[in-house]
Amino acid sequence: MRAEIAEQPAALRATIEDLLPRAGEATALARDTGQVLLIARGTSDNAAVYGSYLIQAYGGRLATLAAPSVATVYRSQMDLSGVLAVALSQSGRTEEIVETLAWAADCGARTLAITNEAGSPLAEAAEVAYLTHAGTERAVPATKTFTTQLAALAVVAIGLGANLDPGELRRAPDEIEATLAAPPDTGPVVSELAPDSGVVVSGRGLAYAAALELALKLKETCYLHAMGLSYADLLHGPIAVIDAQTPAILLAPSSGPTLDGTVALARRVTEAGARAYGIGGNERLAAACTATLPAPQLPEWLAPMGLIVPGQLLAEALASRLGLDPDHPRGLSKVTQTA
Amino acid sequence: MRAEIAEQPAALRATIEDLLPRAGEATALARDTGQVLLIARGTSDNAAVYGSYLIQAYGGRLATLAAPSVATVYRSQMDLSGVLAVALSQSGRTEEIVETLAWAADCGARTLAITNEAGSPLAEAAEVAYLTHAGTERAVPATKTFTTQLAALAVVAIGLGANLDPGELRRAPDEIEATLAAPPDTGPVVSELAPDSGVVVSGRGLAYAAALELALKLKETCYLHAMGLSYADLLHGPIAVIDAQTPAILLAPSSGPTLDGTVALARRVTEAGARAYGIGGNERLAAACTATLPAPQLPEWLAPMGLIVPGQLLAEALASRLGLDPDHPRGLSKVTQTA
Repeated sequence: MRAEIAEQPAALRATIEDLLPRAGEATALARDTGQVLLIARGTSDNAAVYGSYLIQAYGGRLATLAAPSVATVYRSQMDLSGVLAVALSQSGRTEEIVETLAWAADCGARTLAITNEAGSPLAEAAEVAYLTHAGTERAVPATKTFTTQLAALAVVAIGLGANLDPGELRRAPDEIEATLAAPPDTGPVVSELAPDSGVVVSGRGLAYAAALELALKLKETCYLHAMGLSYADLLHGPIAVIDAQTPAILLAPSSGPTLDGTVALARRVTEAGARAYGIGGNERLAAACTATLPAPQLPEWLAPMGLIVPGQLLAEALASRLGLDPDHPRGLSKVTQTA
Repeated sequence: MRAEIAEQPAALRATIEDLLPRAGEATALARDTGQVLLIARGTSDNAAVYGSYLIQAYGGRLATLAAPSVATVYRSQMDLSGVLAVALSQSGRTEEIVETLAWAADCGARTLAITNEAGSPLAEAAEVAYLTHAGTERAVPATKTFTTQLAALAVVAIGLGANLDPGELRRAPDEIEATLAAPPDTGPVVSELAPDSGVVVSGRGLAYAAALELALKLKETCYLHAMGLSYADLLHGPIAVIDAQTPAILLAPSSGPTLDGTVALARRVTEAGARAYGIGGNERLAAACTATLPAPQLPEWLAPMGLIVPGQLLAEALASRLGLDPDHPRGLSKVTQTA
């Protein structure tokens, strides 16, 4: 897992170099559509959350998440003309996802796949396949396939006409490489988290996707009761669970419209006597938190790609501290079948 | 909370009696629309998940969840013509939800509100307001406002032409009343859960909404690290977290296409040496689980309305066993503002 975390700058460069010139394929595919429906599970579903927020917030187009069981269990038929269906699967072999994309096509949707495996059933089932170039991922917890999925979704958003600067996407691997070259010292936070059985991981807007993904990494690698919640949903009930034994990890970009809310949330947590650990943000977030891990400096629309990196390092280091093997979590295999 | 759990049959009868004759208002409102966008937070968001699955699985119409921050934080503009926006808020006063519904209308959507408060800003903002008749809810954790929201969403689905029997909806309060008259003995499960710090709550398809809501109740009332996950997402990583100290609570209807998968999941959990507690299901689920709480006998499309009731009783009893006041969780108030 640690080696694959380090491979992300190269994997991102290869993915962006291949896909950015192909943004026009998404443009053409979406020509007669007005909205996007994302289809995914697990880590890929967290990437889909990023795509949903990015396309809606920056692309001015409705983009929501499919419920695959509607297709695979209930076998419902509906009119999906006017819909671009985007399915994500690292392996391209999760039957439930392949089946749901085929269902969307039967219902009239146009189809695009994002997968790490050329020639996989998912790549074959879609009209356009955007391949991530992460190379083989050996560790069960996904890292480089997640960040490259985010890059592919950024290309989709650009293809759909979102007002985004492709140059910023091209520069993102450099910022991530700089962070990995001088990684944040996770040691103090790891020491404080080691005795905890639970943690709440939160972020608002686009950063919510990185929060969900970090919660999943902590569950997979550390068997920690990690609850990924949006900033707003956290305040509607689950904030009660935060206490001296249950800290919050709060992810935020270094600028943008969600930062102030995250700083306020950090203050609320620490004023209640609990710990708040920040990832990213700015000096005001750092001042409001018990401790903060710096993240790559990226514009808000690309921030999740950087925010997850200190999170991956944290999960890997915490697993090692707990004497667990982060590469091979109990009960999991690399391809999950839930059809 | 316990008193309000017991008020649910009467609240449901009043809601169904008022709204079923008004199903045609949803029909008329949706005439030029092809899909539904649900807008909610917290408990209301769990009800919205039910609405999403019900309208898609039984109504053959796309129905997905909005991300309110797209409207309130990013202030994105998009074309929502052809969309019926359905906003849910118990109080009708959560500004984020009122604002998001107004945004949807500005973007061209038709609008329907489901709220427990006549004359509330949400009721006033929508073209059609379906009022739930739950009476005043004093306990902070929502119970009767949740189940009556499910009833209102069932009426919306019927209005949208779903192939559902209104007579089954009318009879649902009787089945819930029968369960409350001879409630399941939660004592043994409460004793086993009391030392646990975490639990995974899961269900597939429509039952997923009840699983999310039970997880929220356990977080709010017992400060338990309760992770609500769909059956499929659970297998994509978080299953690693289940162990001798972290049991699973699995909710399933007594029949329908999701039952077999839930029985298989229960077997997988117990064969791994962990505990699986069932709610609802049939004798095969009971045989696969460590212990099971029976639920009201309802058809699959109405099952979540019944499945949550033993869950509410369990959360209330566990909170009392832990010496906590389920009516007034720390850090929460009845109206949450996240605008």
